[in-house]
Amino acid sequence: MKKLSILGSTGSIGVSTLEIVARHPERFRVVALGGGRNLKKMEEQILQFRPKVVSVLDASSARSLRARIASKTPEVLFGEEGLAAVASHPEADMVVSALAGSIGLMPTFAAIRARKTLAIANKEPLVMAGEILMRECRKRGVGILPIDSEHSAIFQSLAGHRQEDIKRLILTASGGPFLKVRLADLERVTPEEALRHPRWKMGQKVTLDSASLMNKGLEVIEARWLFDVPAGRIEVHIHPQSIVHSMVEYIDGSVVAQLALPDMRGPIAYALSYPERLNLQLPSLNLFAIRKLTFSPVEEARFPALGLAYRALEAGGTMPAVLNSANEAAVEAFLQGRLTFREIPRLIREVMESHRPVSAPDLREILNAHSWAQKKSRKLIREFADSP
Amino acid sequence: MKKLSILGSTGSIGVSTLEIVARHPERFRVVALGGGRNLKKMEEQILQFRPKVVSVLDASSARSLRARIASKTPEVLFGEEGLAAVASHPEADMVVSALAGSIGLMPTFAAIRARKTLAIANKEPLVMAGEILMRECRKRGVGILPIDSEHSAIFQSLAGHRQEDIKRLILTASGGPFLKVRLADLERVTPEEALRHPRWKMGQKVTLDSASLMNKGLEVIEARWLFDVPAGRIEVHIHPQSIVHSMVEYIDGSVVAQLALPDMRGPIAYALSYPERLNLQLPSLNLFAIRKLTFSPVEEARFPALGLAYRALEAGGTMPAVLNSANEAAVEAFLQGRLTFREIPRLIREVMESHRPVSAPDLREILNAHSWAQKKSRKLIREFADSP
Repeated sequence: MKKLSILGSTGSIGVSTLEIVARHPERFRVVALGGGRNLKKMEEQILQFRPKVVSVLDASSARSLRARIASKTPEVLFGEEGLAAVASHPEADMVVSALAGSIGLMPTFAAIRARKTLAIANKEPLVMAGEILMRECRKRGVGILPIDSEHSAIFQSLAGHRQEDIKRLILTASGGPFLKVRLADLERVTPEEALRHPRWKMGQKVTLDSASLMNKGLEVIEARWLFDVPAGRIEVHIHPQSIVHSMVEYIDGSVVAQLALPDMRGPIAYALSYPERLNLQLPSLNLFAIRKLTFSPVEEARFPALGLAYRALEAGGTMPAVLNSANEAAVEAFLQGRLTFREIPRLIREVMESHRPVSAPDLREILNAHSWAQKKSRKLIREFADSP
Repeated sequence: MKKLSILGSTGSIGVSTLEIVARHPERFRVVALGGGRNLKKMEEQILQFRPKVVSVLDASSARSLRARIASKTPEVLFGEEGLAAVASHPEADMVVSALAGSIGLMPTFAAIRARKTLAIANKEPLVMAGEILMRECRKRGVGILPIDSEHSAIFQSLAGHRQEDIKRLILTASGGPFLKVRLADLERVTPEEALRHPRWKMGQKVTLDSASLMNKGLEVIEARWLFDVPAGRIEVHIHPQSIVHSMVEYIDGSVVAQLALPDMRGPIAYALSYPERLNLQLPSLNLFAIRKLTFSPVEEARFPALGLAYRALEAGGTMPAVLNSANEAAVEAFLQGRLTFREIPRLIREVMESHRPVSAPDLREILNAHSWAQKKSRKLIREFADSP
């Protein structure tokens, strides 16, 4: 029986994780859940999974939730401390890190410090502080299992092969909703259009990042740390069918790839049950129906965000945290109608250009850079909005 | 330093194996070579690789070869005994089994009895006696590494994953030169057309078997024994680009595949150096240049040989040996202009239908069935030729 704490239980990955838990009660039990604003869903999850501890956004959410649930359990916590308590619950064997954005950083570290095996979907902590995070994992003997479909694909394509034989990692990208839109029209796309992903149903932030390809940029940074492969040996291929989830090329020219229908339950279940696999009773991949798999290079002019991610990784130190922070601010502003789609990468570039990265930063310096970039971004967003 | 005996050194796989040995003198040394009629090539290989023992077709070939080489080494042997001596040379760590056809059966067993790690390209021994062969390997703790590109792909896609999680194996087939030919025109195709394979340069027998898809049928049988997966969970996909060499689907819907440019040096080197990989300095797979990967079901009317292989596996016992023997005879007759291309599967079916398989046969019973099918095939070939 594996006991789970789930950070981000009311989000897309959290809900899918609990679906797998519900189907396999003989294998998994939930001990703690961390969420945010969605109290209705949290209440449902409490009734169904009977966790011992939950955490929600803030004190007032915690009061509302306590009022809604009659019984004394679970203990209801809130805020960053609440998430840290979920992440380090003494009974948990594994922590599913599935919060959205930089808010996941500290709870993810709390899980590592408490020596919990980590199943990680929340890419921002790895983007902001991948080097420190992986060092802490090694130091404490903490296993880290990727949930992102691309990283799960690489993990599965590396299993049984030797790290030192890797020639390159190839991350695939569907290209999102704007793969074929005229470049000139990108200036005018709306949040609704950007949130219409052709292949995956996901949370808002990651869907928007997929439209700009910043999601792929963040994944390149994530892969760099998860698999200890330098950025120069990580490539991105546009693959509109989203069937090949990623590939590893070895020094003998052999490429191992993982394929599946786009369904996050696959990679989630693999992380939960590794090294075993669960019979998910999903339909088999039917390559006859898919007809063809195609691959093309990334158009830089269409997707400048990807190049920015490589630049941030090359600059190193606090720069990836700044990239991530500026992106979070820009995405939020775009959803509020305060930036155009094309202004997202422009803003990020400006913020990055005015940052002097601190090399080999500690966690405090990373958080400082993150806050600095947040303020800088807000200021620039106001300027962008004021300019004609 | 790994010491190698190579059965079939003058054939296509043997020559490629020696090319890899020549490039990696720090890793491999040749101790024994077994060939057939090609004395010129054998002489070259002796001069270059200095084996201690070689074996050629027969006594007269052995005399000619001795006359050609001035020095006292290597010892020159011949015939089945010679091949057995090559296969069991006391200094060999690994035997590369790369003879063409059923002639490889006894030497392959000799290698297993002498407890040599086996790198196997010669599929007929596995087709004829796969169950016995694998049992002998297990009993003596002999490792067996596939060289066939499809089986190497499956082997690489299984590494690091669990046998009990396999849902199905998917072998890919290019479809050969007759994938698009009008069915009515298949009756008239010539040996020259059948030997023009669109993707692979191989020996005559395997090239012809690829045109009829019997090669894929033999591979299904080979896979059944090598990976201990029942025939009902082994499928064949037509994949004209020959880039995805085979795939494994797991119970969670995840498919792991191995891709590479069609070049036998990849799988040969992997078997030779396993679990390490050699830097072969082959060009990287360029999926942009390949443009698309497509998959389609096998047309049964076009490729009846594949169905015959499944039927042989289902009938079990001595039937796969009979299938193989009839195919060898039919291919030879086709190359001599004594059978049409469409008569190849017809002949095999007739031979199979007149065979009562012996279940759980020993090696002697398999050899008897093989000889019986050989005679029966020759008789039928004469009848086919005599009929209008």
